[in-house]
Amino acid sequence: MTTIAASVDERLRLAKDAAREIGLLDAESKTSLLNAVADALEAASDVIVAANADDLERGRATDIGDALLDRLRLDESRVAALAAAVRAVAVLPDPVGRVLDRRTLANGLELTKVAVPFGVVGSIYEARPNVTVDIAALALRSGNAVVLRGGTAAQSSNAALVTVMRDALQAQGVTPEAVQSVDDFGRDGARALMNARGLVDVLVPRGSASLIETVVTQSTVPVIETGAGVVHIYLDASARDDWARDIVLNAKTQRPSVCNAVETVLVHRAAADRLLPELLASLVDAGVTVHGDETVVAHDSRAIAATDDDWAREYLSLDLAVRVVDDLDEALAHIRRYSTHHTESIITADQAAADRFLAEVDSAVVMVNASTRFTDGGEFGFGAEVGISTQKLHARGPMGLAELTSTKWLGRGDGQVRA
Amino acid sequence: MTTIAASVDERLRLAKDAAREIGLLDAESKTSLLNAVADALEAASDVIVAANADDLERGRATDIGDALLDRLRLDESRVAALAAAVRAVAVLPDPVGRVLDRRTLANGLELTKVAVPFGVVGSIYEARPNVTVDIAALALRSGNAVVLRGGTAAQSSNAALVTVMRDALQAQGVTPEAVQSVDDFGRDGARALMNARGLVDVLVPRGSASLIETVVTQSTVPVIETGAGVVHIYLDASARDDWARDIVLNAKTQRPSVCNAVETVLVHRAAADRLLPELLASLVDAGVTVHGDETVVAHDSRAIAATDDDWAREYLSLDLAVRVVDDLDEALAHIRRYSTHHTESIITADQAAADRFLAEVDSAVVMVNASTRFTDGGEFGFGAEVGISTQKLHARGPMGLAELTSTKWLGRGDGQVRA
Repeated sequence: MTTIAASVDERLRLAKDAAREIGLLDAESKTSLLNAVADALEAASDVIVAANADDLERGRATDIGDALLDRLRLDESRVAALAAAVRAVAVLPDPVGRVLDRRTLANGLELTKVAVPFGVVGSIYEARPNVTVDIAALALRSGNAVVLRGGTAAQSSNAALVTVMRDALQAQGVTPEAVQSVDDFGRDGARALMNARGLVDVLVPRGSASLIETVVTQSTVPVIETGAGVVHIYLDASARDDWARDIVLNAKTQRPSVCNAVETVLVHRAAADRLLPELLASLVDAGVTVHGDETVVAHDSRAIAATDDDWAREYLSLDLAVRVVDDLDEALAHIRRYSTHHTESIITADQAAADRFLAEVDSAVVMVNASTRFTDGGEFGFGAEVGISTQKLHARGPMGLAELTSTKWLGRGDGQVRA
Repeated sequence: MTTIAASVDERLRLAKDAAREIGLLDAESKTSLLNAVADALEAASDVIVAANADDLERGRATDIGDALLDRLRLDESRVAALAAAVRAVAVLPDPVGRVLDRRTLANGLELTKVAVPFGVVGSIYEARPNVTVDIAALALRSGNAVVLRGGTAAQSSNAALVTVMRDALQAQGVTPEAVQSVDDFGRDGARALMNARGLVDVLVPRGSASLIETVVTQSTVPVIETGAGVVHIYLDASARDDWARDIVLNAKTQRPSVCNAVETVLVHRAAADRLLPELLASLVDAGVTVHGDETVVAHDSRAIAATDDDWAREYLSLDLAVRVVDDLDEALAHIRRYSTHHTESIITADQAAADRFLAEVDSAVVMVNASTRFTDGGEFGFGAEVGISTQKLHARGPMGLAELTSTKWLGRGDGQVRA
């Protein structure tokens, strides 16, 4: 088993050194390395499941609830799924070295802009232990070292996963210091990560809105803000009945606890009488609590009256706010005010309305006639995801391998000086 | 003349609203708009030069020094140059709407990743008033509103320039609120910008190392760190005498006060006897104070002994640190330790050394056989520059129009729901 450095600072420094080695590996070496990591995870399934049992026991003792316990749980098949995700990432095209721009100056100086690894990627996250493996695999495939700070609830599982990955790197003759965890330092580990300017190149928080807010406001390392999703679907006057119903139901109920689940549905007044009865009935039948405005409550007495707070709520549960709006303009104004710029969708048969919605909604992903649940690295074909960026700097929407690279300009001259 | 909102918060809010309008302008409209701004700047030359006279008078009264006074000065020809820069930006290809990625999911959902404006770009900067016009022009061309906080030394000039640009927008039927200044609020203006999460999408500091450090550590808005340059040139064993001399002289003396000027030269020990005599003589003749290690001082008694501090110094003056290293590895280790990741150059005839230098130096721009002074938006063909990013997130190196855009995924479906 690999030795782990005693102090946080030492781990960060070792990660930075390791990044140089990882950054120079070619695509084939990284594929072998990740396949070896996947094999090691499967081989260590018993150890990982045993460590996970400690977390589950602590979770039950502290009453974290069945939903969270289920997300936390690892069994043999879930460990196999983790390994499969690593193998999927292992064979994705190497993002490093891609030529992104080329120009030759009048004096003959040749400039090439190429994709390079960030160096050290940090992540502070919560909940499911699979995030530990996903982020490490994406970081390594893109030539980066990674420093992880997972949630307390999954501490034993994460420690086991990190140990297995480090040992697998070492067995492959690659420095294990490319994968670091600072979980054992608790809040101090998170604080060290947030202030590791010059050692950590980018920090990605992934988890609750309060976790993200803390990292964004306290970090001096560049941060990519992820996640919080007050997601809207707008049912236009021309929305097809079946698409309106099916897409809203899917976006709300298929997995209500995630950021791309819909939280507010806006309905064009001209379509309210046509769409609302069946939509509301389907939602209530599916166990959804509808928080509606006056018109909605008038259509279905099982809906409860929405307050102003409802429009800003990320329920992450089987609750849904529904509001009738006068037209597309009012829908756009509502979205401007309440959206967290994650994902919004319009259901419409009107091309002009679709085009305006696509152009004017200022979110990472804007859909026409599709469920908001598609905003996901796996669905987009990225293999896995580091998170879903809701900011505009560097990456927006699901973040995969390309989003874990930076760029470098290479200049090749023959004696050029500036006039 | 346009009215200016009373409070900082109101100006930020107006900028955000204006961003929607500017973001929807097509390329042609933005070209006309910028040409009108350029015409207005030339037409108002007298007013601008008069406002600048106030700044110069204050500068002389507070003894800011001749170099700074010269950078601050605007005369008719410099105003004409400002206008010319705006006209150059006006005709650059519109970065908005470029398709950056496309994928069709197995279920038929079509995804397109397009470039979109950031929304509101903020900048906190010092010194030359031309930055006010350059950043505003780049922001508008890329469909953004801009909030500016310039240096106190140029306050009157900047106020005049902002007024002329706002009036020009208004005369073109475009909201003048797309160009805002918060100079009149002093430090409070800067603080408001740094904390304007949700109103300002990206903040670019441009100026001294301490200004940049303040913005990076205090801002909760995403920041792109620019500028500070402890820039190195490494003269390899095989470096040509003339290229070594000419490139070092150019990189040090052509404009010593800027971030891409060289601050440290590393010389391969095997080439020291061949290169140092002529190089040191040329530098001293050009008025450069050489801070050298033992070997350097032994070669030329006019060199003064370097201390450890010298290797980390960004002189921004006719001073240069020179050190002899044993080989490329020692040069790379020195650069790793002291570089601010701006620009480094190797002078060599050895392809393998050049390739290692390009691959292993972790800086925004890495050159072979060329002056470091080429790291510049104008030289790269960007028309102008917002600054030179020394961080790895979003933009690295000179930042032009493309770097002022974000992205958005557009999804077009026909009823897709997630299984």
